Amino acid sequence: MQNNQILKNTNAKLLDEFNASLPFDKKLYKYDIAGSIAHSKMLALQNIISISDQEKIENGLKQIEKEIDEGKFEFNIEDEDIHMAIEKRLTELIGDSAKKLHTARSRNDQVALDFTMYVLDNAKKINQKLKSFIEVLLNLAKNHIDTYLPGMTHLQHAQPVSFAYYILAYISMFQRDYERFESLIDRNNYNPLGSAALAGTPHNIDRFKTTNLLNFKAPTQNAMDSVSNRDFALDLLYNISMVMMHLSRLSEELILWSSYEFKWIEICNEYATTSSIMPQKKNPDVPELLRGKTGRVYGNLISLLTVMKGLPLAYNKDTQEDKEGVFDSVETVLISLEIITEVMKCIKINKDNMLKACKVGHLTATDFADFLVKKYNLAFREAYYITKDVVSFATSLNKDISELSLEEIKKANEKLSNIDSEVLDVLDVINSANSRNSYGGTSKEAVLVQIEKVDSWLKKSK
Amino acid sequence: MQNNQILKNTNAKLLDEFNASLPFDKKLYKYDIAGSIAHSKMLALQNIISISDQEKIENGLKQIEKEIDEGKFEFNIEDEDIHMAIEKRLTELIGDSAKKLHTARSRNDQVALDFTMYVLDNAKKINQKLKSFIEVLLNLAKNHIDTYLPGMTHLQHAQPVSFAYYILAYISMFQRDYERFESLIDRNNYNPLGSAALAGTPHNIDRFKTTNLLNFKAPTQNAMDSVSNRDFALDLLYNISMVMMHLSRLSEELILWSSYEFKWIEICNEYATTSSIMPQKKNPDVPELLRGKTGRVYGNLISLLTVMKGLPLAYNKDTQEDKEGVFDSVETVLISLEIITEVMKCIKINKDNMLKACKVGHLTATDFADFLVKKYNLAFREAYYITKDVVSFATSLNKDISELSLEEIKKANEKLSNIDSEVLDVLDVINSANSRNSYGGTSKEAVLVQIEKVDSWLKKSK
Amino acid sequence: MQNNQILKNTNAKLLDEFNASLPFDKKLYKYDIAGSIAHSKMLALQNIISISDQEKIENGLKQIEKEIDEGKFEFNIEDEDIHMAIEKRLTELIGDSAKKLHTARSRNDQVALDFTMYVLDNAKKINQKLKSFIEVLLNLAKNHIDTYLPGMTHLQHAQPVSFAYYILAYISMFQRDYERFESLIDRNNYNPLGSAALAGTPHNIDRFKTTNLLNFKAPTQNAMDSVSNRDFALDLLYNISMVMMHLSRLSEELILWSSYEFKWIEICNEYATTSSIMPQKKNPDVPELLRGKTGRVYGNLISLLTVMKGLPLAYNKDTQEDKEGVFDSVETVLISLEIITEVMKCIKINKDNMLKACKVGHLTATDFADFLVKKYNLAFREAYYITKDVVSFATSLNKDISELSLEEIKKANEKLSNIDSEVLDVLDVINSANSRNSYGGTSKEAVLVQIEKVDSWLKKSK
Amino acid sequence: MQNNQILKNTNAKLLDEFNASLPFDKKLYKYDIAGSIAHSKMLALQNIISISDQEKIENGLKQIEKEIDEGKFEFNIEDEDIHMAIEKRLTELIGDSAKKLHTARSRNDQVALDFTMYVLDNAKKINQKLKSFIEVLLNLAKNHIDTYLPGMTHLQHAQPVSFAYYILAYISMFQRDYERFESLIDRNNYNPLGSAALAGTPHNIDRFKTTNLLNFKAPTQNAMDSVSNRDFALDLLYNISMVMMHLSRLSEELILWSSYEFKWIEICNEYATTSSIMPQKKNPDVPELLRGKTGRVYGNLISLLTVMKGLPLAYNKDTQEDKEGVFDSVETVLISLEIITEVMKCIKINKDNMLKACKVGHLTATDFADFLVKKYNLAFREAYYITKDVVSFATSLNKDISELSLEEIKKANEKLSNIDSEVLDVLDVINSANSRNSYGGTSKEAVLVQIEKVDSWLKKSK
Repeated sequence: MQNNQILKNTNAKLLDEFNASLPFDKKLYKYDIAGSIAHSKMLALQNIISISDQEKIENGLKQIEKEIDEGKFEFNIEDEDIHMAIEKRLTELIGDSAKKLHTARSRNDQVALDFTMYVLDNAKKINQKLKSFIEVLLNLAKNHIDTYLPGMTHLQHAQPVSFAYYILAYISMFQRDYERFESLIDRNNYNPLGSAALAGTPHNIDRFKTTNLLNFKAPTQNAMDSVSNRDFALDLLYNISMVMMHLSRLSEELILWSSYEFKWIEICNEYATTSSIMPQKKNPDVPELLRGKTGRVYGNLISLLTVMKGLPLAYNKDTQEDKEGVFDSVETVLISLEIITEVMKCIKINKDNMLKACKVGHLTATDFADFLVKKYNLAFREAYYITKDVVSFATSLNKDISELSLEEIKKANEKLSNIDSEVLDVLDVINSANSRNSYGGTSKEAVLVQIEKVDSWLKKSK
Repeated sequence: MQNNQILKNTNAKLLDEFNASLPFDKKLYKYDIAGSIAHSKMLALQNIISISDQEKIENGLKQIEKEIDEGKFEFNIEDEDIHMAIEKRLTELIGDSAKKLHTARSRNDQVALDFTMYVLDNAKKINQKLKSFIEVLLNLAKNHIDTYLPGMTHLQHAQPVSFAYYILAYISMFQRDYERFESLIDRNNYNPLGSAALAGTPHNIDRFKTTNLLNFKAPTQNAMDSVSNRDFALDLLYNISMVMMHLSRLSEELILWSSYEFKWIEICNEYATTSSIMPQKKNPDVPELLRGKTGRVYGNLISLLTVMKGLPLAYNKDTQEDKEGVFDSVETVLISLEIITEVMKCIKINKDNMLKACKVGHLTATDFADFLVKKYNLAFREAYYITKDVVSFATSLNKDISELSLEEIKKANEKLSNIDSEVLDVLDVINSANSRNSYGGTSKEAVLVQIEKVDSWLKKSK
Repeated sequence: MQNNQILKNTNAKLLDEFNASLPFDKKLYKYDIAGSIAHSKMLALQNIISISDQEKIENGLKQIEKEIDEGKFEFNIEDEDIHMAIEKRLTELIGDSAKKLHTARSRNDQVALDFTMYVLDNAKKINQKLKSFIEVLLNLAKNHIDTYLPGMTHLQHAQPVSFAYYILAYISMFQRDYERFESLIDRNNYNPLGSAALAGTPHNIDRFKTTNLLNFKAPTQNAMDSVSNRDFALDLLYNISMVMMHLSRLSEELILWSSYEFKWIEICNEYATTSSIMPQKKNPDVPELLRGKTGRVYGNLISLLTVMKGLPLAYNKDTQEDKEGVFDSVETVLISLEIITEVMKCIKINKDNMLKACKVGHLTATDFADFLVKKYNLAFREAYYITKDVVSFATSLNKDISELSLEEIKKANEKLSNIDSEVLDVLDVINSANSRNSYGGTSKEAVLVQIEKVDSWLKKSK
Repeated sequence: MQNNQILKNTNAKLLDEFNASLPFDKKLYKYDIAGSIAHSKMLALQNIISISDQEKIENGLKQIEKEIDEGKFEFNIEDEDIHMAIEKRLTELIGDSAKKLHTARSRNDQVALDFTMYVLDNAKKINQKLKSFIEVLLNLAKNHIDTYLPGMTHLQHAQPVSFAYYILAYISMFQRDYERFESLIDRNNYNPLGSAALAGTPHNIDRFKTTNLLNFKAPTQNAMDSVSNRDFALDLLYNISMVMMHLSRLSEELILWSSYEFKWIEICNEYATTSSIMPQKKNPDVPELLRGKTGRVYGNLISLLTVMKGLPLAYNKDTQEDKEGVFDSVETVLISLEIITEVMKCIKINKDNMLKACKVGHLTATDFADFLVKKYNLAFREAYYITKDVVSFATSLNKDISELSLEEIKKANEKLSNIDSEVLDVLDVINSANSRNSYGGTSKEAVLVQIEKVDSWLKKSK
């Protein structure tokens, strides 16, 4: 892209193919047209162009938008980019008035504007999807306050937790993602239009007017930075990488939980690949692809970081490489959020299997030891040795410690011969979960607080 | 890391070497000790431990901090991590009271706390350095309002701009960096302490108390997320990558400008490698290394993104790989900002060479054409053809268009035979720069506005 | 992809869109068809299918290939992937015989085969382009054995070298790239067909037959590895990254050398963007884009590395994410090599400017000191102090040391009053270059050896 | 690094800290000393230095090596790098003769030499570890020819395979890794010594002599390429990334298989973290860390790729950033291979659980359908519908299809009332595995061929 309108490109076909951004940047047409209309209005308000020229320009642009909307616009790779393609068509439609649109503007600030608008607009779209997704997750949590599964560390059963609580952990991640996009929007909500090639323009323009027309917070502060800045695009790529990373974690769990070994969930038929001969077999294609697509967006992030490294000011052709990765990441995250939202809506939770798993691994052994300490005032160390005996005894019976009867417990170690039957409550995995009542913990009470907080957050962030 | 204090690690030396994080996580000792003191205070306030135990713990920890500060603490790789190393020493110092410190806490939330504190603390330190750097840059800009150089596109002379304006472009980048760290701090300023292993704790703790003691905004919302979350560390790595990317761009320019071909600047002797035999020869080692170190921090970012991809909840040992890259990136960006600040303080600007360069490339040819349009009401196209003749004529004289005399201009094209002498002002490169007076442009007036804005920003963000 | 032919995918449109690989994997059609024909031949030879069925299959597939070649084939996203699309069409064309093609084969080994063939084929294509490029570079070197420019360290003039020698440095890089692709082809030239879903097949197939028909070195050794292996694709992505990295270095130099400051080269009009108003102005768009596209291929490499991380055996849907990045990288490197070859064919070398630059920076000061040591047996240190005086004296005259007259040299330091006129030869920059006659050095003699070696290499690697 | 020995570095402490490579490049001392000894020998053979000087130099260097070996050498950051540190010490030890060592050499080729030697040496070390690891894996395979587990696609049971076969899949990966290092060694086995600063040297050196002394294949072809080339380091980083990627896949499986849900293996106590209170609980820390460390080496690869992007020739200080990532990756892969070798040596395989899992998911349903087709000449489609009934019937009995009795099968569908008892063999999961007898398949026969091939490979590659 270059500001000089009389740049002439020798028409080597190979160069066109190599050089042209039209095949991908045509996605920006709506932003380009909106930006041009705002620019023409400002030019007219500043008496730089006539009102009649402005009207012609605006009508022409609206017609072009319609043509593109309806698939009637002919894109020609020789036009190189979307800006030139629209400009050429505008000249066909309205003649010389079209040229006046380019007063006090260059392709450099035009590109920066279109791309900024694309990024801000899609950041908002992603946040809409994130919110819908969080709503679905929250609903799932509300339905599973009394569903228990073993919380894991090292993929080993660690402590029983509620499924609501588990889902709330993911909600926390996606809330941070939402806030990360909000701060992206806030930090990058500046209008580069009027920066011209790199140094501003001698024309008497008013950048605050286009800023208002296009709903930016303010014009950018320095034109040279404005045409070479791609921070907004990098912020978007990073933020999307974070969403996909979080989705990859959830996906990993969905894949594990769908396996024959876990059987904790079932992905509904609409979103799984099934076999007619083995109806119980389902491939979790969606979470697998989500996990794989994480690599794709990481790659797009590192691509643009690499492009920007060591680039001198102001505009360099290298930055033409900024768009495809961003478009690809945006489309990836939007469809990913859409489909995972649908998957989580219809997911089937096997409560019984989850609960059964809580009774594998003696998850309440620690509760038992704590009970001995508190109730019988045993030294920590002694309590642990007794617990160890109980665990061994349970194992010898092929039982989990939570499944022992009072009689069995008494037999496990001689010091337990008079133990209170209250111990059975302590060993119960659900009681164990609900005992963890600290702020942010897994007890039902603590979970209800968390649900309430997400509810208010959702209301507030509408 | 694991919450169970009676985990026993078989002491294979190879495993120790592979497994231990102590060699690097000892950097966290101050945060670990501060966190433990806050935790002990809360436990005492909640009557979970006695005041006397709390006092012993606090005094012991303070002594350990002093020992580490003074290099007297003996680190032993068998202790595996800094938390265990401090715990062991505390037991040596105060006996069984030490064990009570670990009530209602696990290594999982302890690690999350220490690392969060490290990240927030260093985000603030980086911002301090960024501000000092911006101050130095602003000062440089103020001193070079009347220094002109050719603004470049495609590394080709494009339009004359002031050096102040050029520097202000970089200031804009570093201001965004600063704001990106501010939003990082805001978004991640939550206290994970009290999350315990992954599910909260049955003890009657008060997480708001440790939150206050440690100056967090609030406790984290969900304990399972808290122990598996590394968003704060990724945010830091991304933000540092952005700072280094911006520094790499400035560095590229410093390297170019230091070459014999440009000779626009001279890096002062204190920060260059010089040759005693060829005193005019200087190697711009500092900007070269800054440019190179960009790769390093990009690598650290992609490392942690890769680590986190597809990890199921809650704690997995993989996340132990989170710290070294963060420490390395923090140390890299801190020293990088420090040294570039010094370099920019003493950089020598060759105003004359910069100005001379403005007179290469007929940078005011466009101004000339615009002048013809405005003054003589020529059609755009005609004006351009005339300008082309003038450029050709200047080239034939081996001159820049800005160096032509009125007589020469008149000779260039017959239509110019009566051109007004006013044209000489138009062709002047400094006038050209100052004509670009739009908001954010390079004119002196517009630059003074920008300087004023940065000045207020600096005051506000103190 | 799945081996079970009766897998039924619920037809959610969203899922189709998310899941389908057809929009990109249709590029594999030629490999898919060639693989299927070979498979059918083997099946017939092994008496698993009849000769008549084989003939129907082969004719049907050839017709499909023609339909796709001619753009008459209708791709339908519901067919999910290219394999299914071809299979469906084959059934339309030849009826039930089509089903027999899938005997002893699954989509898993079919995908592995097609993709391996694509990678090997394109590795060869890239090597053809590399060789053509090296030929052009070698020709350039041959034409510039007597062209001298300053070799740089730290972008500072260091020692005069010939341009032929400079270009030979790049040739070395691209020769290594070529060899890297050769070893890729050698290491990955194994036929996965016959691996079936993941465990081989009970049918009496002969994998050596398809191996011969498809020109592989041997069948792969283990079927489970064969369907989950993507090493060949990663090797390709890495090798392409290396080519692009080397191109980015050359591009950086072309951009620098095209600047007004250097003016060492001129990119010919066909491959530059020029301005009609400023005919001397040219933007080096091609090298800029080449430099930028480096980021793109790095990103594709990191994407697939991320996808493959932590994937359990055997096939996972994640690996569907393997293709787009590979296709994109292949297309990028092919067009990049093509266009840089054209650019280097018509590049204009400004010999005079290059030579002039050799006389900036006192590049022969070291030669002078060495001369004093050898000729007059001075101590190294003393010789250096004298040289320093000569450099200072030259600088005071605004000359380079290589431009001093004998008289001037004599005046520079009293010890030089009788210096032999031979010193003038020593100070000459061309002589200096040609004195570096060690193997691999820049002397004309050494350069001719290098050219000869590349010539033989080119002949050998035909 | 710079070739001019009289470069003087202003001693800013900050610059030293920022600039110095000594803290990490001291690892290169053995290569530096070996290279210097070879260089001195060549210089003496070429009569460039005296035999007596050579002897002093060699003895001095050997003493320095001993001092460093024994930890008696004092490293001082002001010496900047290992080359200078050794040079300074050599001067202390042998006086002016030390200076002669630097004839016809610069720090640029010295660094390139040391680093190349480090890379080649460690590539060989890694290959030694890879071979030991493959030997252990092969042994494991040999011991588990009759152990069966469900091969997975999409983490769903797909087909029964032998554990030997599973392990052989991993062996294939590590064999490719080995070959990748071999081709690295072959492609990069060139001696850069004698390239001097960037252009060769006027001294009458013989690079083939140092090449022989240092066991390289040949001297490098072009000196300018030699000092700026870092391909060998990138090749190493990529190859290590591939090893770690493969290890991450194995690690993922070890983690899954260690879970309560799978219980297919047990990591031996020496390489797991266990809990004294819950003896059956073990955390798979080693595979988790291996999986995590994949991110680390990917990051190191992308770091150096980024550093090298767009660097003009010849030496730039940026490349000083090449070493730390390489050292870190080498150390990571060496210890990773060492520890995984130990882990696989003592891993406990739960054959019974693996076999039991083969009987989940009706893995022989396809075998059953095939049997119907072959034995009773049913149409494919009909056979499938019958199979579907059998699967449903088995499911209703809460059995796997492989566990049905003949009577039960007959009841499943009326067409089966006379089915031959031979069907029971077909439904057997072990028979199913052994029926897949194609080359590279999972049948015992095919597996023995694979084992034999790896055995020969091991012998050949010794």
